[in-house]
Amino acid sequence: MPRFQLDPRLEADSVPVALLDLSAVRLMKDSRWPWLLLVPQRADVSEIFDLSPEDQALLHAETVKVARLLKDLSGADKINIGAIGNIVRQLHVHVIARFDGDENWPKPVWGFGTASAYPDGAMEKRISHIQEALAL
Amino acid sequence: MPRFQLDPRLEADSVPVALLDLSAVRLMKDSRWPWLLLVPQRADVSEIFDLSPEDQALLHAETVKVARLLKDLSGADKINIGAIGNIVRQLHVHVIARFDGDENWPKPVWGFGTASAYPDGAMEKRISHIQEALAL
Repeated sequence: MPRFQLDPRLEADSVPVALLDLSAVRLMKDSRWPWLLLVPQRADVSEIFDLSPEDQALLHAETVKVARLLKDLSGADKINIGAIGNIVRQLHVHVIARFDGDENWPKPVWGFGTASAYPDGAMEKRISHIQEALAL
Repeated sequence: MPRFQLDPRLEADSVPVALLDLSAVRLMKDSRWPWLLLVPQRADVSEIFDLSPEDQALLHAETVKVARLLKDLSGADKINIGAIGNIVRQLHVHVIARFDGDENWPKPVWGFGTASAYPDGAMEKRISHIQEALAL
């Protein structure tokens, strides 16, 4: 069976936060929005229905857990969840905290403008908060 | 308990296709892409984690079923799935068939341009195909 390897573009655009039973949780290097990715650690999967039923249930549970946690941590007005993958075909689920009036509100974040780097230390702080909340 | 009522904007922008155990399946009135919505028939729910665990599992199963079916029917290069809801807060899941070179490819469809009406009879034909596939 082929081994899971993180897509190079996902690896370049995000940093590791945690490993769940199925998914690697990563934070996008973009301070415009609190933006997480869940990447199921399975090789050669691009659609949700390519996963086994057991893995689909795990991905669903992990997505809901991360979405609720991000909502609680950020106080977001709305959580946006998406599995798009037109560019990077490795299955990955976006979970993004959105705020009324944020950049490109109320349109989606994907494909809008260019990533804005976190100020020094801010990304590490956000990652710690998410790791602590995931551990609860 | 409040009764489910379809959001007026979702009602205006889409037409009914089928009622599943949890979700109303609807087709967007936009011929640019084969584009379905799943709307869980529950009142006052805007985030997936607002649903009961049982309803979450149903929504997941129905989303995967519809996504696979749309992929098979359309021969899409990629299925896009999203729960966004920044404008319409009633929980609804988009399932969209995307093709390399379609309008706005590889960017997402949401918020792009304006809907293009189906030619006479084409929407009804697409709905029939989806209803037949759902009944199998």
